[in-house]
Amino acid sequence: MNKFSVYTGIPESTKGLVRELRVRWMHEEMGLPYEEVRTPHPESKTDEYRKKQPFGQVPYFESGDLCMFETGAILLHLAMKHDKLLPKDEEKKSKALSWMFAALNSVEPYMFHYFLLRNDPDASEAIKNKAKKIADDKLSVVSKELGEKEFFAGEFSIADIIMTTVLKTSVFLGINEHQNLIRFVERLESRPAFQRALNEHVKLYGK
Amino acid sequence: MNKFSVYTGIPESTKGLVRELRVRWMHEEMGLPYEEVRTPHPESKTDEYRKKQPFGQVPYFESGDLCMFETGAILLHLAMKHDKLLPKDEEKKSKALSWMFAALNSVEPYMFHYFLLRNDPDASEAIKNKAKKIADDKLSVVSKELGEKEFFAGEFSIADIIMTTVLKTSVFLGINEHQNLIRFVERLESRPAFQRALNEHVKLYGK
Repeated sequence: MNKFSVYTGIPESTKGLVRELRVRWMHEEMGLPYEEVRTPHPESKTDEYRKKQPFGQVPYFESGDLCMFETGAILLHLAMKHDKLLPKDEEKKSKALSWMFAALNSVEPYMFHYFLLRNDPDASEAIKNKAKKIADDKLSVVSKELGEKEFFAGEFSIADIIMTTVLKTSVFLGINEHQNLIRFVERLESRPAFQRALNEHVKLYGK
Repeated sequence: MNKFSVYTGIPESTKGLVRELRVRWMHEEMGLPYEEVRTPHPESKTDEYRKKQPFGQVPYFESGDLCMFETGAILLHLAMKHDKLLPKDEEKKSKALSWMFAALNSVEPYMFHYFLLRNDPDASEAIKNKAKKIADDKLSVVSKELGEKEFFAGEFSIADIIMTTVLKTSVFLGINEHQNLIRFVERLESRPAFQRALNEHVKLYGK
């Protein structure tokens, strides 16, 4: 049985934003059973936990002898192992890979950048506004690419799972005004598999 | 013939740091011929260029009908296509994937964060110091994991190519004091394939 770590004891405001949701959603889309390893928030910082997730975050993922971390790596591993959610057509596949990595390395870092500054009293308004501007530059590229397309690579893929969750963060941070991206997040989150994953995810709050 | 875009007309200070170097190094390690598409720096911001690299950066990569961007995606594509530089052993492979994604999504974003603040007059010393601290937290994790190991996944892989270039940025930024990581960068950069790549890369300066 596949296992992955999830947090308990985290604030309500993070509902639907924690990264385990990517892995949970992936399992639901593929119809794979899984087991949660419930981890109270501060325990993820222990040396014991870091043997499985060196950065002390969720999730780590275990399947038989394999132990992995990084949601991008986990989703890619599952997609390749089960031959699902990564297009077979070479052109679409290369598009899915490009946009999955873009979400993780060209978009999300600028969400982190703004996230780290936005409530810090040591950050001036000017520096926060610059961070917002850079984040919006990246989101504008994504918005232009997506247009009114349903998915990033011609069919539903791991690129859409990662991108949805990255864009969700931008919506949460109040810095996404691109209506097509907001509609994309709503549309993807209305998928039955996401709804099942979210339903399980929110059970952790208040635990 | 594989092609990828490279910048001309960029400042000397970026020597050895531009991301095309990852793709060039990969080609040299695999013994694959390639063609450069020389692109003067501002031209990468045109609509025409952005059809191939939506974020207006280098490199994009073309091979026959395929057109990709994001160095992580390009290296992964090449590794899978040529069955090289991604371990065959499942455990090592999952380690290579975990550490490649970690470099791109858990380490490099914090290098960007500090990079964006470090010379900005609107950034206070306090906020710059916090950014340095977060970057060092991530580098400390990588340092602890690497220890005195030669490679991140038991054998040379795409994880090492990406991690070397990410760590190189931290050295350039003056925020890496982990001797084992500095030695790792030096050791990996002394590989003949890297040296050949660097040798071609630096020819672009002054063009």
